[in-house]
Amino acid sequence: MSVPRLAVSVDLVVLTVREQRLCALRWRRDRPPYDGAWSLPGGFIQLDEDLPVAASRLMAERAGLADVRIHLEQLQTYGYPDRDPRQRVVSVAYLGLAPDLPASSRAQVLWTAVDELVHEDRAAFDHRRILCDGMERARAKLEYTSLAAAFCPPEFTVAELRRVYEIVWGTSLDPRNFHRKVTGADRFLIPTEQTTTRDGGRPARLYRRGDAEQLRPPMLRPRA
Amino acid sequence: MSVPRLAVSVDLVVLTVREQRLCALRWRRDRPPYDGAWSLPGGFIQLDEDLPVAASRLMAERAGLADVRIHLEQLQTYGYPDRDPRQRVVSVAYLGLAPDLPASSRAQVLWTAVDELVHEDRAAFDHRRILCDGMERARAKLEYTSLAAAFCPPEFTVAELRRVYEIVWGTSLDPRNFHRKVTGADRFLIPTEQTTTRDGGRPARLYRRGDAEQLRPPMLRPRA
Repeated sequence: MSVPRLAVSVDLVVLTVREQRLCALRWRRDRPPYDGAWSLPGGFIQLDEDLPVAASRLMAERAGLADVRIHLEQLQTYGYPDRDPRQRVVSVAYLGLAPDLPASSRAQVLWTAVDELVHEDRAAFDHRRILCDGMERARAKLEYTSLAAAFCPPEFTVAELRRVYEIVWGTSLDPRNFHRKVTGADRFLIPTEQTTTRDGGRPARLYRRGDAEQLRPPMLRPRA
Repeated sequence: MSVPRLAVSVDLVVLTVREQRLCALRWRRDRPPYDGAWSLPGGFIQLDEDLPVAASRLMAERAGLADVRIHLEQLQTYGYPDRDPRQRVVSVAYLGLAPDLPASSRAQVLWTAVDELVHEDRAAFDHRRILCDGMERARAKLEYTSLAAAFCPPEFTVAELRRVYEIVWGTSLDPRNFHRKVTGADRFLIPTEQTTTRDGGRPARLYRRGDAEQLRPPMLRPRA
């Protein structure tokens, strides 16, 4: 039996919270197809590398993010026949969640607010859809997991964590109710002995992320 | 730039509840590699077909499940270099959840209880790991979605639904508490006008699945 052979790529949806907005890393294309359009950073996997290895390599090579603390997970695989006009490419998308990182040193790589990116006219391939799937995955995971802390520095206040939830979900949350829920969730937040006034108000306690992966009880999004 | 080209397959984790056990569809291999071992039904994608199309085709061709009501979703993609000794194969696994279905007409395809399958000596490729990932996905999805109903006939009793939860989670649940939770969850169950005595006890009300995809509130697994 002859087995069809295809190119397999990895595309990266990297999300962070910068300047009070949910931002994604975009790659500015400078050659056809989609010359001048935005795309996700990515590239082809090599014959000798596993998928997570390819994702980490491309995170360094293409996104300029080497040696940074980042949560990386497989998002979904996209494979309809005409998604790349040059050849058949099956793309394994990875989702990265990161605390606010410095701007990339590469001119082609920029953090951009996701609401601008989603509404921008020219997106390459099916990358707008992959970005939207990544955003929805992040929104849903904030409900059931402790991943919101992946957007925070190692030590953070409850108000900072609440701003992550508000920005990712695009909603506002009641501060007292939020405080009660997150400090009541099992092993989500570990109090440190430190406080900070960097929020501008009274000294607020600093927490670090506990070892819970699942949030019990979950933090459900306010319903539309 | 030369782009490496690989074979891409789809492998199917198909789960059902049969005779009070969680069962998966296995494929008995009759040629090397892994001659005589069990594997998941699957095959290579064709150059002109999208991934979900390939999954549906293989569900019919290899699993013998054409024209059946089945929930099918992408599970995860597996791509480490030596997972197939013949060549580099990236496999996109799909998870199918089905109500109890007739035995397959194919001798190579058998429903087998997952606890037997997981402990059987000879599993082909990384299919034991893919099966375990599929089982965990199903267990987790029963918490947050209405997918338990995918294991039920179109009309079912609360006791039948509870047995699905108990079998998939491998636990027992308090009947009254369960009844209160599932009938209280928003748009999960729609009462029909019918009752049944097929459970053997008093006439029990029959329900069908409502249009809720997410369960609110969720049904959390008892903690270990």
